[in-house]
Order: sequence, then C-alpha cells, then structure tokens
Amino acid sequence: MANVFGNCIKLSIFGESHSDAIGVVLDGLPAGLPLDMDAVLAEMARRAPGQNRFSTPRKEADAPKIVSGLFQGKTTGTPLCALIENTNTRSKDYQPELLRPAHADYTAFMRYHGFSDYRGGGHFSGRLTAPLVFAGAVLKPYLAAQGIEIFAHIKSLGKEKDAVFNTISPDIEAYRNIQNRELALLDENLIPSFAKVIDNAKENSDSVGGVIEALITGVPAGLGSPFFESVESRLSAMLFSVPAVKGVEFGTGFGITELFGSQANDAFCLEKGEIKTKTNHNGGINGGITNGMPLSFSVAVKPTPSIAKPQQTVNIETQTEETIAIHGRHDPCIVPRAVCVIEAAATIVMADLLLEAKTYAEPATERN
Amino acid sequence: MANVFGNCIKLSIFGESHSDAIGVVLDGLPAGLPLDMDAVLAEMARRAPGQNRFSTPRKEADAPKIVSGLFQGKTTGTPLCALIENTNTRSKDYQPELLRPAHADYTAFMRYHGFSDYRGGGHFSGRLTAPLVFAGAVLKPYLAAQGIEIFAHIKSLGKEKDAVFNTISPDIEAYRNIQNRELALLDENLIPSFAKVIDNAKENSDSVGGVIEALITGVPAGLGSPFFESVESRLSAMLFSVPAVKGVEFGTGFGITELFGSQANDAFCLEKGEIKTKTNHNGGINGGITNGMPLSFSVAVKPTPSIAKPQQTVNIETQTEETIAIHGRHDPCIVPRAVCVIEAAATIVMADLLLEAKTYAEPATERN
Amino acid sequence: MANVFGNCIKLSIFGESHSDAIGVVLDGLPAGLPLDMDAVLAEMARRAPGQNRFSTPRKEADAPKIVSGLFQGKTTGTPLCALIENTNTRSKDYQPELLRPAHADYTAFMRYHGFSDYRGGGHFSGRLTAPLVFAGAVLKPYLAAQGIEIFAHIKSLGKEKDAVFNTISPDIEAYRNIQNRELALLDENLIPSFAKVIDNAKENSDSVGGVIEALITGVPAGLGSPFFESVESRLSAMLFSVPAVKGVEFGTGFGITELFGSQANDAFCLEKGEIKTKTNHNGGINGGITNGMPLSFSVAVKPTPSIAKPQQTVNIETQTEETIAIHGRHDPCIVPRAVCVIEAAATIVMADLLLEAKTYAEPATERN
Amino acid sequence: MANVFGNCIKLSIFGESHSDAIGVVLDGLPAGLPLDMDAVLAEMARRAPGQNRFSTPRKEADAPKIVSGLFQGKTTGTPLCALIENTNTRSKDYQPELLRPAHADYTAFMRYHGFSDYRGGGHFSGRLTAPLVFAGAVLKPYLAAQGIEIFAHIKSLGKEKDAVFNTISPDIEAYRNIQNRELALLDENLIPSFAKVIDNAKENSDSVGGVIEALITGVPAGLGSPFFESVESRLSAMLFSVPAVKGVEFGTGFGITELFGSQANDAFCLEKGEIKTKTNHNGGINGGITNGMPLSFSVAVKPTPSIAKPQQTVNIETQTEETIAIHGRHDPCIVPRAVCVIEAAATIVMADLLLEAKTYAEPATERN
Repeated sequence: MANVFGNCIKLSIFGESHSDAIGVVLDGLPAGLPLDMDAVLAEMARRAPGQNRFSTPRKEADAPKIVSGLFQGKTTGTPLCALIENTNTRSKDYQPELLRPAHADYTAFMRYHGFSDYRGGGHFSGRLTAPLVFAGAVLKPYLAAQGIEIFAHIKSLGKEKDAVFNTISPDIEAYRNIQNRELALLDENLIPSFAKVIDNAKENSDSVGGVIEALITGVPAGLGSPFFESVESRLSAMLFSVPAVKGVEFGTGFGITELFGSQANDAFCLEKGEIKTKTNHNGGINGGITNGMPLSFSVAVKPTPSIAKPQQTVNIETQTEETIAIHGRHDPCIVPRAVCVIEAAATIVMADLLLEAKTYAEPATERN
Repeated sequence: MANVFGNCIKLSIFGESHSDAIGVVLDGLPAGLPLDMDAVLAEMARRAPGQNRFSTPRKEADAPKIVSGLFQGKTTGTPLCALIENTNTRSKDYQPELLRPAHADYTAFMRYHGFSDYRGGGHFSGRLTAPLVFAGAVLKPYLAAQGIEIFAHIKSLGKEKDAVFNTISPDIEAYRNIQNRELALLDENLIPSFAKVIDNAKENSDSVGGVIEALITGVPAGLGSPFFESVESRLSAMLFSVPAVKGVEFGTGFGITELFGSQANDAFCLEKGEIKTKTNHNGGINGGITNGMPLSFSVAVKPTPSIAKPQQTVNIETQTEETIAIHGRHDPCIVPRAVCVIEAAATIVMADLLLEAKTYAEPATERN
Repeated sequence: MANVFGNCIKLSIFGESHSDAIGVVLDGLPAGLPLDMDAVLAEMARRAPGQNRFSTPRKEADAPKIVSGLFQGKTTGTPLCALIENTNTRSKDYQPELLRPAHADYTAFMRYHGFSDYRGGGHFSGRLTAPLVFAGAVLKPYLAAQGIEIFAHIKSLGKEKDAVFNTISPDIEAYRNIQNRELALLDENLIPSFAKVIDNAKENSDSVGGVIEALITGVPAGLGSPFFESVESRLSAMLFSVPAVKGVEFGTGFGITELFGSQANDAFCLEKGEIKTKTNHNGGINGGITNGMPLSFSVAVKPTPSIAKPQQTVNIETQTEETIAIHGRHDPCIVPRAVCVIEAAATIVMADLLLEAKTYAEPATERN
Repeated sequence: MANVFGNCIKLSIFGESHSDAIGVVLDGLPAGLPLDMDAVLAEMARRAPGQNRFSTPRKEADAPKIVSGLFQGKTTGTPLCALIENTNTRSKDYQPELLRPAHADYTAFMRYHGFSDYRGGGHFSGRLTAPLVFAGAVLKPYLAAQGIEIFAHIKSLGKEKDAVFNTISPDIEAYRNIQNRELALLDENLIPSFAKVIDNAKENSDSVGGVIEALITGVPAGLGSPFFESVESRLSAMLFSVPAVKGVEFGTGFGITELFGSQANDAFCLEKGEIKTKTNHNGGINGGITNGMPLSFSVAVKPTPSIAKPQQTVNIETQTEETIAIHGRHDPCIVPRAVCVIEAAATIVMADLLLEAKTYAEPATERN
C-alpha cells in the first residue's frame, strides 16, 4: 500500500531501524545497466551519519549487499534486491510509551494498533532513506547517459540564506563541486555562518531545519502528463515520502504568487534554433509536462524532531502528561544529510518518467 | 497514464475545452450514497465563470449529466459517469501556432507530437477542474457523515494577506460562512483591498496569483501510510494536478524551516482524555499519518497565464519570435474560483484515504 | 477498483443496461491514431444483437458517440471517451426479487447492498461488452500497423467441434474470411450442424455454450514479463472479465497435461535464419513472454443463463423458493456474438503490452 | 512491472536460481498477525525438492529468514521481507547458448537483451515459487481465522484421473488429510497407479504433466468485483504466474460448454434459511463475484520441460540447430510439488480480496 512507488520502475522499500536489515527491491530496471559499487558507496557515504562534525557520531556500516538482479556487474532487468544490515543499534535508548513530539510514535501506534516496531522509530526511521539513496545511485548513470544531471544545495538553514541556482543557464561545472564541500552550499563563503546555525542549535540542545533547492539539467521537453501524472505530482509524491519534508515548490513556487502574470509568464524565445524561455518561474514545467528548461524545485525540511531539550508529551500507557528529553546520538540538523536524499528521490522519479516516456515518444502516424 | 487517480475510488477525467463534453468516471464509490443534485450544482456554481465581477463574463452551462452509476437517487457502487457539455465556445479566439507563455501549448505540442486539440487549451484547459469539483461535491456528504469538513480561503493575493485558520481549535461555524462571501476571506474587512488587487491587475491587462489555505477538521488519527502513500504524498499528487498550482506545504510548511525543533515539535497533551498537540506546525500529519489534529495545508496558485498585455513568444510553425496579446474572456485572477477546486481535490483524496483505511482499521489479533 | 484495466492504456468502462448510456474512457492511447468510424461500426455490428437468425431480434442503435480525445479524425493522446446510448429497453421484463440462476442478481445484491441497478442486469449486462468491442476496434489498426492480427472462431458449440487453427503456419488469408460467415467457423461445411445446435436449444427454451479459439499472428518475441505480468496473466485477467467466460487455456492448454515432455516441449529450429518452434503446444509463450510464434488460446463460454425453461430459484424479498421462467428477447447461444468480444479483449491487451514493451525494448548498454 | 501483485497486499518477489538469495516483500499485511515459523516451514517443506521418491534428490535449505516486518512474533503491518538463500547450486550443469525447449531461455534472452542471469533458469526458475509458498503460509492463518480453507489435489496425471472435490457439500475433514499422503490424491487407492505414471516417465528420461483441482471453502458471498477485478480475473492472473500453468478454469470450466443452460445454471435454493445453489457449475462465482458457495477451479500444469531425452534446439550463439539432453537433477513431474504452490497462490489472492472487501463491506446509507 505504502512502500511501492513508480510506474515503470517499481521501487519497494522495507525494514525497521532495529530489524535485521533494511532494503529495497527495484523492479523494471533497464537490463544491462552497469553498477559501479564504488560510486554507489560514495553516494551512500554522503547520507551516512558520522561523516563530519555536523552529524551524529553514530557510525553505520551502510554497505548494501545485492542479493539479486545483478549478473556480471550489470543489471539483469529482473528485480534487484539490496539489503543494508542493521548493526550499530542501541535499543536501550528508547521508551516506547513516551510519545516523542513530531515523531511518528503516536501515529504509528494508531495506524498499526500497537504492533509496529517502535525501536529507533522502527519503519519510520530516517534510516529508511538509505535504500532511496541506494536506488538513486543505481539510476544516476542511467540519467547521466541521457545527459541529465541532478544537483541540490542547502538554500537556507533557519534564517540563513545561500545563493540560488541559475535556472536559465546553469553553471553545471560549478554545481558539480557542491557536494565536495563541508556543507552543500553554492556560496562557499557562507559555510562558517551556516555552520554556526547548526552549532548554536546543538549547544542549546535544540535543532534547526532548512530548505533544499534542486536543479535538474538536460531534461528534454515533453516528459510527463497532465493532471494526476504531472511531473509536479510525481515528484512531490516522492519528495513528501522523505521524512521531515513539509513543503515542495516548483520554480519560483510560493514566490510566484507575488508576481504579476506579465512577470511570471516565462516568455518563449529562440536560442540557436531551439525554443527556450527567457525566465524560468515555472521551474521547467507547463501543464505538468517538461518544457526543456532546467527543472527546479525546493523542499522544506523541518528541524530534527529528536532534541535533548525537555518537551511536554503524553505517556500512552499511563495516559498522563509527562516530560521527555531525547538523549542519544542525533543530528542537530538533518538538512546536510538530506541533500543527497533529495537528489536520489528526484533521480528515481526522473528515471521512471524517462522510461514511461518511451511509451509516448512516437505518434501512431506522422503529422503532415 | 495520466488521468486516473486513487486507490479505492478510481477517478478518471476526460475532455477538451472544445470537445463535445468533458467529464469524469468515479469507480469504487460506496454504494447507497445519496446524490443531492442541488448541492452538486451549488458547488459547481462556485467554480463556474461569470459568477461575480472578478471572473470572466463567459457563462457556461455547467450542469453535469449523470449517465451511469446512479439509481433511485443513490450511487449504485458501480462506475458513476458524469458529462458536462461544452457549449459556449469561441474557437476563433485561438491561434495554435503562437505559443502562449506559461500555458501548456508548447509542452502539449511536444508531448502529443502536434496531435492534441489546441482549441481553448484543449485537455489542459482550467475547465477540466469542473469534473474535479463535481467529484468533490458527490463525496462531500460522505465525509460529512463521518464528521469531516474541508474549508479553504484565499490566504493571500499578490502581497495582500488574509488572516489564517486556527489549526488548533478551529472556529468551524465561522469557517462555514467563508464561501458565501464575495471573496473567500477569513477577514471580511479585507474584501475591498483584495478586490483592488484584482481590479488593478485587470486594468493593467495583467493578472495576479495567490495562496489558498485549506483546513480539514474531524480527521481521525491513524489515516495514511508511511513513505510513498503518506497523506502529504497523496494530497500533493492531487493538488499539483490542479492547473496553476506551483507549491504545496503542510502545516507551517516552508515557515517551519525557520523554527527551532523546540518550537516546531508539536508537544503532546491531553484534552478531555484525548491525545492532542499544543501547536500544529506539522499540519496534523506525523510520519505521513494523521495524528487527529486538524489537517492544514496551503497551495500556491500562479497568476492566470492568459493576459492581454503583449508578451514575447515563438511561432512554432514559422520558428520565429513574435509578440502575442491574449484577448478574449479571461479571469485576471483565478484564485477565487480555485478555492472550491482545492476543497474538491482534498475531498477526493480524503474519501479515498478513508475507504482505504478500512483495510487497516483492525489488527489481525488483539494486542494484550 | 473494478473497471479500470491496463498499464499503459488505461481502459475504464461504465454504464448499466438501463442507464442513460454505457461507455468507455481510453487513456494513454498513442497520439495520431486515425479512427475510421465505419470500421468501428462494422466491428460493433458483429457484436450487436439482431444481426442474424441466431441472435435476439432486439435491435440496438449501438453507434458510439465520441465526446473527447479525437481531433481532426485522429486520437489526441488525451483520454478518448465514447458513449453508447441506451435506447431500446423494456424495463418491465425484470422482477428484481426473483434471482435469475447463473446471473449476477444475487452477487450484485450482496456486493452492493441492494443499491445496484437491477434493470436488465444493470452493470453486469452483456451489453457492457460493447465498450470493449469499441476499444478493440479503435486499437485494431494500431496492431495492424505493426503486422499483428487477431482471429477467433467458434471451436465448439455444445459437443459439435470445428477444425482448429494452424498455430505453426497460419493461413492468414483464409482466417480473414471467418468473420464474414454466418457462423465464425473455420470449416464452412459445419455451419448447418452448428446452426442445428443453436436451433435445438432455442426450440427447447434452453441455451448452449461453446469454446472460442483465438490466434494472434505477427507477435514479436520478447513481449511480456515473468510472473504476475506474464502474457498469460494479462490476457486471462482481461478474458475472464468477459461475462460468461469460465475457462482460459493457452496453446494445447489442458490437453498438454496428457502429453509427455518430449511431445509438449516445442523444439527450436531455424527457419530462414529465424528461431522458431516446430510445434506450438505452449501457445507462443514461454516463461510468460512471447517467443515469436503465433499466440494461441481458447476460452470456454458458458450457455446463456437467460432461458425460458422454468428454473428453481429464491425470492430474495420473501425468502421463499419459487420458479422462474425468463421470457423476453435472449440469445439461445451467445458464443457467435462473443467471438468479436474475445478478439477485442485480446486486441486491448496486445496494444497495452506493445506500448509497455517500448520501456524495455532497448538495454541500457550494448551487450558485447 | 512484473513482480508486484495485489491491491491491498502488495507482494513483490525477487531473485534468481543462482543469485545470493531469492525472496519476497509483503506490504500491506494486517498488523498483529502471528507468524508460526514451524507452520511456515511445514508448508515450505511440501514444495521443497527431495521430499520423496517422486522429486529430485537435490536438497535445498529453504528456511526463510525474515529481515523486517516482524516484531515479537507478530506482523507489524509494515513491509515484511523474507529471504531464502541459494546454497546447493551447481552452475556447471548449464550451457546458456543451447536454448532448452519449453523453458524461458530464449524468451528471457530476447526480453532482457542477453543480460539476464541464465544459470539454472535464473529468475524463471521454478524455485521462485518458494517465496509464493512462504507468502501463502504467512496468510493461511488469516484466512483460517475467517473460516476459509483452501484445498488442492492432483486431479489427473497424464491420462490417469483422481476423484473430484464435492463442490456443494465438501467433506472438509477428509480434505485436510490430502496433503499428508505420498501423493495429494482424493482417492488413496490411486496412489500406485499415479506413481506408475511418474515412474514410467522417469524411466523413459521423459516427464509428465497433470491437472490440479482446488477448492476454497467458507467464502462469504459478495467478494470481488465485476469485469477486470472479477474473482476469476484476479485468481487467474496469479495462477498463470506460476511457471508451467497453461490453463485455468472455474467450476465445470471447459466442461460447462457441453451443458445446456438448464443444466449449467446453478438453481438457487434455501438451506437453513441461507441462499445456496443446488449445483456448482459456476465454481462459486457469478458476474465475477462470489456467491457463497465453495469456490472451485482447476489448473493445467505442463510436463517438466527439463528432460534427459535428446531434443532438437538451436544454439543461439552459433545460430545452428543442435541436440540437447538436459541432465542433472530434475523432477519427472512437478505436479506433486505444485499442489502447495497453487494453494499458496490462491491464499494470497483470497487474502487480498478479503482486505479489499472491507472497503465495500458497508453501504454509505442503510437500504430501506
């Protein structure tokens, strides 16, 4: 019901924070796609905790083990299943009866009638984004071979703002460097001030959120469909699957509501014989379908719900109000680690859209 | 691929602006649901053009004709098909070779290889929201019978801002009056200033957008699923289907990124023995599942793309740059008419979620 | 839940025997497919009642009215909706409280809690196969353009048996004549004896069933997928949707169970450099995927449930046992009219499979 | 595309004969379902090879390892993933260039462009039925708790015929013994003659097929939906997923075509106040929906394609005709081991139908 995504590539994720393993099944992958495990591990390392001073010191051995669908280094086209074992877990950190505010403890209890695995957030753990990152890493070369690249950066942390992508003539070379920085910012000079936002939150036993902006370059015109299968619908359904995402906007997004039509309408022009737009307030999408301009969107990531600061809550067993302070190893800000998750989520959707587009790539007859 | 929505209720929409009719098929409706055609027509009148001075004088006879699935005034449970005939159309207003900026002319041309019906925007016409409003009107009593109500208002037009919903203790009585106002505002006193925004745009042959905020009251805890079927994923997929929507946020949305975790985490409390939250920054959803608080979200609606002001564009036949001025009867602002579309869109998703929730309403065994 | 079929082409049917109309929405059609209404009407005439002495004298004006998705004589690629109005209906023939044996009266009552439209069988009427025939007629030229043809004939009526298709080297020219015969038989000489089976049933106020054999020529190797999306799974799901079908078998079907492996295994051979099989007991499918041989299958069609002969039944209102004799205009044998329905059903599935095959038509990299 | 089944319970299978493991993900399981691993292993042992003299001496350690979705012995409601490791594999038995007749070697090559894992049949191995049996075993207690049981027996092997189920008043006690017999026959006395059919085939380096009949007791009336989601469509789609199945029929199936309507129509009667039918030629299904009678169907299982007898084939690399003799450990008849696979397949479909039925279990209003 809940854990299968995609029209052409069916992605099925499973696992709990403290189960034997978490993992993913990818069905409908193109056959013959080479899988470079080093590249996959590099992507997964971006998400893994303990990579730098901004994230929890908890180390996870996140090496995925591929149990099917790969033969002689290439995808077979039949379902590829990858497992990521759960090893470094400390169950004693959790008291299931105390509902952690802004976590899924209460909603999971209601949804699954008390049978869900509550240890470490169970199936709702942010750890479940690792299979997404794996899937994105597998599909990244498939997009690359078609000239499509996906970039993301931290657009803001708290009230601190980074520069924004150029959505008309993106500086792809520069954007490729973003992920090598200590924090994924366009403007390197802002790293200290962004770092300070995180450090302050940490010192206060608190947490902070931010906005991630993404850009997809090399997208052909004519991808996607009207209404329920619009590119916006497809991407947003996937992006809102990522825990902590509370907003998604395309192009100028909410800002477009403060423009006049004469400003917001991206005028068409010809550039070396190709139809382009002079601005890109619509984020590369008109009527749910790509228009050949770079695709741009932003997502709002809420502050990490786990904080050491005391919070009021309810004990679900005793039905009394209590105070909770969540100790243990938690990121004061998950935005830096979420950057590659957003890239992966977008990669999965774009790969699915590209495969689906083959079904409408040609008309039944030629137009005169 | 594109025009079927829903897990339990399959909604299928069809039609073009100038085809014989547009319409909808609703499969999976509960049997025995009474259909009050007056109530349906009243909902549809809210969307219809020409209702007041803010919308185009074009009058449409939007009376839906139900051709199947209704027997003795109640749904049969088999597919309900409703048609809305296209009558008041003026084909001569359209020049297909001139791509209207921010419309789907170009993307439809690319997607359908030049075979799509371009008259009046064809399948991409805002008129296709009429079947959505119809579907919402059919399902509204189904939600009402379970104590669920959906409200929406114009949160902003351009830079003009309305009050916002109380998402903790909503004043339902007051909210029921919103839709009777000339403009769907919480604060009636703001009607003149909001009207002025629209009037100004009109005078300038321009258009303006806005934000619509919605609130769903009476939602039980435990609806929805993690990840790809999160309530946010489901709602956003539908909301981004509505033409002109470029952003969707839940609860405090993008604003949550400027809060600390200690502010953003909605603390749990007990209210008359029931678990509630003291704030509602998460919009009634944790981990993709409803937590029993009112569900709140906002959508960004871009300015009407059709403006009389001259705009630069490309002639797709001659492949030259030209100027276009879109005359004809167009709303300078579609936000007022979009309010009931957003309500209908949310109604459809909530009904689908409620039906689906029956499949997980009970555990396989009792918990000790 | 029940009335939407297909992965790439979404087919949605609706209507009841006595509602205003029945119809179909076809989403995902290739754009630019010419629609020859005369050819469509010719296909629909094959299914229509009253065509010859074997079918009910009831005449239906089954001309479909296309309300969307067609522009300048070709499909637009957006949803095509067609309506078939219900005109010649005689509601007084039906007594809903008396459950007609082998009809869906009782099951519909239980499934829809007494709210379904019982007149003329409502949504369960054989009349709902008309939209399928329409859809098949729309898609037939799409298959033809790829060299694929679908043939069907009456393999048996009661205990009377026709010749069978040559599934190795089909005589396509000859098979094109089948549908022009008074009864769709391979062996024209058998028409009188088959006619007698029907006439006898009619004289006895009884009915008779039969088997329809179908052959699909020109199918490329490599269509379909393993397991749940096997060609057999896809075709059977559609074929069992056709009312009165109680069995589906591929190739030699149930007969293959009486062969030894050495007989049943279709040996591979080379024919003008192409890989073929010497026999075709597997009906052109191995492991759920087409092998390039003609695809063959048979379906069992039960005797028309409506018979004038008195039958024992239950009055669902009074909860007493009663006798029912179903008068009115009913075919003593629906097999002749079902031939084109089976062809249409197979056409829809093949078109969907062909579109889907585009997603796996090429590997991600070349094989060395 | 191919390996995900189900509306409410999403079943996703993966793996190849010689990959690290095969397995299954079950999403949408009811929460709180106890999992009795001994019972699961007992079901899996029925399918495992090497259980008796009729099956290959190859022993597989088919113990499934549950990696997620189970907590404190009960299902959590989140995805349950189980792995079955591949251990006892002998890769050297396979020559991929020689296409094994009636296997999927050629079709897999064409479908996956030469990238599929050919060892041991890869993803097309009969071994992939083990995850189905596992899934069936997990869900069997869910059906049992609702009074539903599924039985299957070998109806025929070659030309040898067993007795058939009583589909009106089934002798459930007796049917529970079937699976304890050396061969799953209703008539124990026939075991020697059925055994001889297998032994003969083995001696001749050949193989033999058969028909499996299944019966589902305790099914409530009103399950399923018309047309594409008919109980026949759903069951057949799953049953044709099982490798080697070439035919599926419900009730009297193909035999019903030789009856008159007056014989085939199952007359309604009252039995202790309940509506029943006097015969059950329709296999408990009218109009795609269950009628409260036992559900009955039969499937045709073709002879094992792997035989030691020399067969003509084509070498796909050299493109020449050659002779192949398949040595190694293969069952001369897979029908005995397929009995529990058919039961499991039906169990999965019935569980999915029962969950889905909750969405239409109640009308929106009461009927007067």
